Amino acid sequence: MFEFTLQAKDVGTAARLGQFTTPHGLVQTPVFMPVGTAGSVKGLTPDLVRSTGTQIILANTYHLALRPGAEIVAELGGLHQFTGWNDPILTDSGGYQVFSLAELVQIDEEGVSFRSHLDGAHLRLDPAEAMRIQNLLGADVIMVLDQCVRYPANREDVEAAMQRSIRWAAQCQAAHARQDQALFGIVQGGIHHDLRRQCAQALVELGFPGYAVGGLAIGETPGQMDAVLACVVPHLPADSPRYLMGVGRPIDILRAVARGIDMFDCVMPTRNGRNSFAFTSQGVVRLRNEEHKRSRQPLDPACECYTCRHFSRGYLRHMFLAGEMLGPILASLHNIAYYQSWMARIRRSIREGTLLDWLAEENQKEDRAAPLERT
Amino acid sequence: MFEFTLQAKDVGTAARLGQFTTPHGLVQTPVFMPVGTAGSVKGLTPDLVRSTGTQIILANTYHLALRPGAEIVAELGGLHQFTGWNDPILTDSGGYQVFSLAELVQIDEEGVSFRSHLDGAHLRLDPAEAMRIQNLLGADVIMVLDQCVRYPANREDVEAAMQRSIRWAAQCQAAHARQDQALFGIVQGGIHHDLRRQCAQALVELGFPGYAVGGLAIGETPGQMDAVLACVVPHLPADSPRYLMGVGRPIDILRAVARGIDMFDCVMPTRNGRNSFAFTSQGVVRLRNEEHKRSRQPLDPACECYTCRHFSRGYLRHMFLAGEMLGPILASLHNIAYYQSWMARIRRSIREGTLLDWLAEENQKEDRAAPLERT
Repeated sequence: MFEFTLQAKDVGTAARLGQFTTPHGLVQTPVFMPVGTAGSVKGLTPDLVRSTGTQIILANTYHLALRPGAEIVAELGGLHQFTGWNDPILTDSGGYQVFSLAELVQIDEEGVSFRSHLDGAHLRLDPAEAMRIQNLLGADVIMVLDQCVRYPANREDVEAAMQRSIRWAAQCQAAHARQDQALFGIVQGGIHHDLRRQCAQALVELGFPGYAVGGLAIGETPGQMDAVLACVVPHLPADSPRYLMGVGRPIDILRAVARGIDMFDCVMPTRNGRNSFAFTSQGVVRLRNEEHKRSRQPLDPACECYTCRHFSRGYLRHMFLAGEMLGPILASLHNIAYYQSWMARIRRSIREGTLLDWLAEENQKEDRAAPLERT
Repeated sequence: MFEFTLQAKDVGTAARLGQFTTPHGLVQTPVFMPVGTAGSVKGLTPDLVRSTGTQIILANTYHLALRPGAEIVAELGGLHQFTGWNDPILTDSGGYQVFSLAELVQIDEEGVSFRSHLDGAHLRLDPAEAMRIQNLLGADVIMVLDQCVRYPANREDVEAAMQRSIRWAAQCQAAHARQDQALFGIVQGGIHHDLRRQCAQALVELGFPGYAVGGLAIGETPGQMDAVLACVVPHLPADSPRYLMGVGRPIDILRAVARGIDMFDCVMPTRNGRNSFAFTSQGVVRLRNEEHKRSRQPLDPACECYTCRHFSRGYLRHMFLAGEMLGPILASLHNIAYYQSWMARIRRSIREGTLLDWLAEENQKEDRAAPLERT
């Protein structure tokens, strides 16, 4: 069911243009996946999400398994029917959220025990359970369970987690029961290039239809991330999609594309949108600021999203100050549209051979950019 | 600019079918106006509101005058351009909210002094100011400033407030500066039929393009409300629209239509929607209830709104339990659509002469209905 086709390779960088097929349609890469944590992209109807040019969304296994529960989602027809999003969906394994959100996490060779952050219930996640849950949820692309290590960490811990992640990947592969879902492996190894290489090679030996790079965007510098990608990507098969998990700012995405990455997800557009921060062609805009009080300008004059076509900055500011839901809704909508037009420009630049010039330009701008909440 | 045309009169009741023209389009009556308090129908884009069959919305002068301020709205192009709602809009005078929301309210013959519930600022509202603000906001229909009295109240207070409301209505008429806005009078007088009659006659003598019945739905019984309407309506001109402010449940609207009322507004569909209560053809549904956990049924199988076409009760319940914005959004959307299809049925019933039968049927059902938050 899952098939990745490489359509063009950039000359100046490792960027590629591709597409993959899923039971719920085609995805053009490089692609950005907005995050629909608990089964909705916060504040947006599926129609509004689609209007941004979004092709595929990510849903969080951890959140959905805790509430309403994978069995309930399955009873209600699986994730697509449940959420009303009939285009492709990817679920993560839940591992990352267990390590970042759950309480009293204990890891052993077989899996991870934790307490739900919602009600304190004792729960257990292991490779077989991660597969069982994701099989029930029914996304088009699913992820192996891996062990994430906080950054910074000592090399021994990173190596042990990486080795365990490889064993868990093999167990996930064995437990995965649905032919219509593509299971991706996840490369771990922190900022250690030899560990990353070792992990990539072991996963490729196991053989997956796609490969993710995990354990980044957790505190290392952009330079360290770039170096890891430069090291890992050459060890991944050219004819499989590569997914950089949890990244990131538009500039991070552009740089990673130049390293050969095809897929991205991040909460930045929605989380920042809810906090009144907007990504625009003129830089980051904080809509709560006094300066927008009398502004008749659209949020971004270069943007054609619903928000920018219908509302002024003055109105959007008022929505945030009045605590109206429409503020977070319209800002999230715009931010996703901004990301999607960024991705469309990336695909166009690869096609036209202008990616390297654009990247150089953005790298220069980057020094002047305002700092922004990262995750 | 404002013109009301009577199109049909019901045989069995005082109900009428009509339409009025405004600078922003035509409105078919009887009509229900969803409330967009601070410049948005909470949680809904104008497109979504329009998708429910909504023809005209109400915005609150009190909220908008406090934040962002009428001058700002005017600078940003007036309410229509500000909110992105280019169909008709009605603003109230702000009086009702001053009496119900503001602090330290002091009334004298010239107007009312109060402190903003937002920041405690000392403010003053009088007939000229109510007109100045509403002229700046720029709605198609605007309302005179009236004095509302809490229920229950003694007759002397009600009478004094009613007399003052008549004087204020005349002052509003004199101060009203825009030809493209229709100014409606408001009949006060509590539950006292002679006071209501007296007020109606005085206002008709002043002459307004439309007349509202105010000071109801504040604690009196449905029977008392019905009796007031039966008393007041015959004293209002047949060729002007009649607007019952702040009402109400679907059954209240149906009954009032049968008494000859043409226009309604109420926060019930949106406020209840945000609290997970939904109006359906099968009665009121509380979406948080356990019973919906595994339900693949739409919220209302008889409804064709976006919510009912795309989502199960199980999903909607999950959205509310997970605290996702999409729960309030989708339930509000459905509730407004329910109200609008209720109004469409009212208009159809008048055209077909079946209103009286339907009313009898609904009056019978009413005893079995679940209690519901009222305002």
